[in-house]
Amino acid sequence: MKHFLVRSTTQALLRRSRNFSTAAIAQPRHHHGGGTYGSFYLQRMSTLPEKKDQQPEENKNETNNKNSKAVVSSYWGIARPKLLKEDGTEWPWNCFMPWESYSSDVSIDVTKHHVPKTFTDKFAFRSVKFLRVLSDLYFKERYGCHAMMLETIAGVPGMVAGMLLHLKSLRKFQHTGGWIKALLEEAENERMHLMTMVELVKPSWHERLLVITAQGVFFNAFFVFYILSPKTAHRFVGYLEEEAVISYTQHLNAIESGKVENVPAPAIAIDYWRLPKDATLKDVITVIRADEAHHRDVNHFASDIHHQGKELKEAPAPIGYH
Amino acid sequence: MKHFLVRSTTQALLRRSRNFSTAAIAQPRHHHGGGTYGSFYLQRMSTLPEKKDQQPEENKNETNNKNSKAVVSSYWGIARPKLLKEDGTEWPWNCFMPWESYSSDVSIDVTKHHVPKTFTDKFAFRSVKFLRVLSDLYFKERYGCHAMMLETIAGVPGMVAGMLLHLKSLRKFQHTGGWIKALLEEAENERMHLMTMVELVKPSWHERLLVITAQGVFFNAFFVFYILSPKTAHRFVGYLEEEAVISYTQHLNAIESGKVENVPAPAIAIDYWRLPKDATLKDVITVIRADEAHHRDVNHFASDIHHQGKELKEAPAPIGYH
Repeated sequence: MKHFLVRSTTQALLRRSRNFSTAAIAQPRHHHGGGTYGSFYLQRMSTLPEKKDQQPEENKNETNNKNSKAVVSSYWGIARPKLLKEDGTEWPWNCFMPWESYSSDVSIDVTKHHVPKTFTDKFAFRSVKFLRVLSDLYFKERYGCHAMMLETIAGVPGMVAGMLLHLKSLRKFQHTGGWIKALLEEAENERMHLMTMVELVKPSWHERLLVITAQGVFFNAFFVFYILSPKTAHRFVGYLEEEAVISYTQHLNAIESGKVENVPAPAIAIDYWRLPKDATLKDVITVIRADEAHHRDVNHFASDIHHQGKELKEAPAPIGYH
Repeated sequence: MKHFLVRSTTQALLRRSRNFSTAAIAQPRHHHGGGTYGSFYLQRMSTLPEKKDQQPEENKNETNNKNSKAVVSSYWGIARPKLLKEDGTEWPWNCFMPWESYSSDVSIDVTKHHVPKTFTDKFAFRSVKFLRVLSDLYFKERYGCHAMMLETIAGVPGMVAGMLLHLKSLRKFQHTGGWIKALLEEAENERMHLMTMVELVKPSWHERLLVITAQGVFFNAFFVFYILSPKTAHRFVGYLEEEAVISYTQHLNAIESGKVENVPAPAIAIDYWRLPKDATLKDVITVIRADEAHHRDVNHFASDIHHQGKELKEAPAPIGYH
């Protein structure tokens, strides 16, 4: 890491080129993740007017190179800037940026269980256990398919909760202690799980149909659920994540016992979780399970805050807890 | 900037303390923005087991220090890690993190107008102009109040569009070219405008009532609007942003002519847009106007993509375009 740092920063200080990959390293805290590159790009424009005239042209080229299929926009500067991987090759993903990749903390306790205490806890726990029975009946031992289908649902609660907190913040002129971002991060992380699983399992037409129906029902149900009782909704998600951890543990056992072939990890997973080039399905399932365990903690924590009669904004959100 | 870099990196390489502010600079691309600090924290835990036993205790202290009002959670490690500003003082905000602050590109053309061509363009343009007449009748020259109220609405479209794309991505097992993030970034940026304005103008009870009603209507209307025609919805937002730019230009003129007092900028604005300590309302309105101009371009661009019969995912999203 140290060498990497010294190297990158030296590059950043010496190079006058427009290597955005270097630029990002040079300005780590200059902008929120999404914008490090863009801000560098734009600041050069605003601070170095003599460069200004070159920008639209440069950018147009970039647009042409990068989005051959896409519209060449009349709105200069708004194409995604050119990004490089650490090995110097072009960044292949649009669905996530280099600064969103991370090394998962696999040391998290995957056996932890929140013992239901209150009535609402028990309601949440029983509902999840009931859904568990249904999904086990449907999927049996088709682990890959099970995982893929469940991720299409797992991406919903964080988005619904984050959106409702966002609207509440606007409506009440209130801060939210970072919880909007923490919950949207969860939703996006679950979506990345899906983008990974779909590289391994191709959904059939009836599975696609099931997903559309399930999302329609679950989105609306959870929307109302969260409005009625965020306390119970977060607990419910906490228990869902506990079940997800169990499912992925079974998945891992199936891989170890050879029931499921330990295929090479998809490229997207290697870049997102910063896995070694020769990573396998086992490594992918291990980091996904760790992610679910982190979401479990965040949601039980959120429910605890509500159980103590407080609002989420009273406890700073565990942003970037992975 | 260079000195800052050399200094910070040197610190990062020499210090063995658990100064997260340094840690973040040390691992700029190690994690998506939100997680740089957390990931450093957690990786130390996973990579340096001998440190492990100290962590929960350390973290508990942190929780106590940082969230005196908040629950002390049984879920170790999930409190927001300690953050420091560049001047070494404690980071005072939970609603945004240091890496989300940025220097706005105020060089953007604030006069640009997308000439409506198609029928849907004209529909979007006329609707916005009609709403403009209503809001001008209501607010007249109460610029601060006008701005504050409009930001409560401006935060809605990005969130609705981002959420619908997220659900579509889950439902169809599809990538989205980064547009979910780009649109959620827009929503969050508008919310930060509101968090700034509310420091300057205190809403009255009838304004609060109006906001609640307006959000109820606008959220549902835009939700349906976006499902029916994302092409027109993005154009509509593009024109809304054009009007916002006009309003803020009038606001700036009023400040220059002395009609509106050029009060000192709120602390939150100084930290979010990295403004000088002695920044004033004029500086704040200038950067907010630049933000709106950027959102204008993004939404017109998105509408253009749809106008060419393509999907947003076919053009990489202009993430971090500010």
